[in-house]
Amino acid sequence: MYAIASSPGKAILFGEHFVVENQPAIAVALSLRARVKASLMDASVIRVSSRNLSMARKFAIPPSGEGDPLFPVAYSAYLVMERIGSPRGIDIEVDSSIPPGSGMGSSASVAVATIAATSYVLGAELSPEEISKLAFESEKIVHGRPSGIDNTIATFGGAIAYRKGEGFLRLNVDFSEVSLVLADTGRARNTGEFVKRVLALKEAFPNVLEPIYYAAGRLAVEAAKLMERGDWEAVGVLMNVNHGLLSAIGVSTQEIEQLVYTARRAGALGAKLTGAGGGGFIVALCRKGSENAVAKELEKISPRVIISNVSSEGVVVEAKS
Amino acid sequence: MYAIASSPGKAILFGEHFVVENQPAIAVALSLRARVKASLMDASVIRVSSRNLSMARKFAIPPSGEGDPLFPVAYSAYLVMERIGSPRGIDIEVDSSIPPGSGMGSSASVAVATIAATSYVLGAELSPEEISKLAFESEKIVHGRPSGIDNTIATFGGAIAYRKGEGFLRLNVDFSEVSLVLADTGRARNTGEFVKRVLALKEAFPNVLEPIYYAAGRLAVEAAKLMERGDWEAVGVLMNVNHGLLSAIGVSTQEIEQLVYTARRAGALGAKLTGAGGGGFIVALCRKGSENAVAKELEKISPRVIISNVSSEGVVVEAKS
Repeated sequence: MYAIASSPGKAILFGEHFVVENQPAIAVALSLRARVKASLMDASVIRVSSRNLSMARKFAIPPSGEGDPLFPVAYSAYLVMERIGSPRGIDIEVDSSIPPGSGMGSSASVAVATIAATSYVLGAELSPEEISKLAFESEKIVHGRPSGIDNTIATFGGAIAYRKGEGFLRLNVDFSEVSLVLADTGRARNTGEFVKRVLALKEAFPNVLEPIYYAAGRLAVEAAKLMERGDWEAVGVLMNVNHGLLSAIGVSTQEIEQLVYTARRAGALGAKLTGAGGGGFIVALCRKGSENAVAKELEKISPRVIISNVSSEGVVVEAKS
Repeated sequence: MYAIASSPGKAILFGEHFVVENQPAIAVALSLRARVKASLMDASVIRVSSRNLSMARKFAIPPSGEGDPLFPVAYSAYLVMERIGSPRGIDIEVDSSIPPGSGMGSSASVAVATIAATSYVLGAELSPEEISKLAFESEKIVHGRPSGIDNTIATFGGAIAYRKGEGFLRLNVDFSEVSLVLADTGRARNTGEFVKRVLALKEAFPNVLEPIYYAAGRLAVEAAKLMERGDWEAVGVLMNVNHGLLSAIGVSTQEIEQLVYTARRAGALGAKLTGAGGGGFIVALCRKGSENAVAKELEKISPRVIISNVSSEGVVVEAKS
């Protein structure tokens, strides 16, 4: 018996960093997905293999080995067993098109797909809310203090407005007119370090930073309305403004700026860093038809450029037997 | 009989653009100066020559010819004659080390020096306040709606905090520990167009832009205190934050970002665009001793790099006979 589940990656369009201090953020699901096949086994272990990492490991039930990159996958499967009171030997195969460590929520998508596939093959159908909650538990192992955005978008898909402590709101947006182009700076991010740095700046200059946070919050609220209205020109303008605010709090770099301005010059409606900054990816919003031209210009200076639609599809069980 | 007067150029360290909507700005006087020699002549005309422009013109009294680049100089001299009721033939020679059209207040410095030299040679000593006021009148011819910062700093030197409608406050700052490095993007600015664009953005998204303006205002107030305290590290950090806010309101460019990040990487305490943006110059704050290294890196990508101290000296009569 097996089940295959898949779950989307995410991009933050508005509000990263500012979300840490209770301002709203907006994230969307990408057409890039993580796929997980869970199969029952006789041996009483959790076997995890990753096509992307070319790695395989066996974990005991309950699993240990926190440093291992595959541990969070085993732990996600174990959380399901614990939840439904049914420990079983299980084989988990991971295959993801979401670049890991990119700020696109790769680990949350793998966790969500693992939890969905595992629960299915164990004969229990968890509600999306339960899947998201277990994935959040699993994310704590990887990220320490995850915001909750990644597991939410990986579970529900589409676009969400998220506010710490208040949960999330699904936005009613038609994304058929736009595509996203994501371009890699070629530099690794260090989310934890950058979050700390920004908070230190806020502590040093609260009078200056508080209105910047407030502006970012207003911006996300405004952007949510414009997205629901389909006013993509204005959404692009606000992405550019949001990028400037991220630059103001010190998380941009020369490489990020080059990508951002290259995308804008090539016809993107707006472009900004996405995620923690200091490296990682930028995201450009393009009217459908212009994404290839934007990607072509970005490819000249970026080691990895990805065109993605926004997907309304959250976690789904794709196959089972 | 002649008199030679000189007057400093300026750099805005904090608050450009935001000053238009009544937020405070901070400007400093540069060691770059405009020098003007005014000599009495028998012929009843105002003769103006510019060493920098390699041009000379004769103007009637009162002068006409508003399109002429030397007209504002003749007009400045005429304003003095009108003020003291003594129209006389006069020869004005301009020699300036302030790059024109750079946002460094070249025209105001020339106006201030012209007014000082002319009044001296005509036997009337105007107060600094009167000189600044006449230069402001003359600036209206060039800029339409000048902020008043340029003539103020060109007259008084040092550092000023300026707020529209409230006038200015002289800051008590010791600049001996720092130098400025100014680097040209090689692109001309278009101040009027950029001011309009920013105001259009503010009109479209007042909820978002108002807190950004407010943040910029808090920032200038905070920076003034830190400058008076000589905390240059913190001043540099706030220059970077201010640059981000300028990026947020859409007046930065790829060339500006390259210069700004190059300066920061080369050891500047902070770096930002200065003036209207869209081109023009960036300004980097450097601890004394590091300015050459910063200038050297900037020279690799900028057509013109200028090292300048901040000067406490405003307008002075350097020589007379």
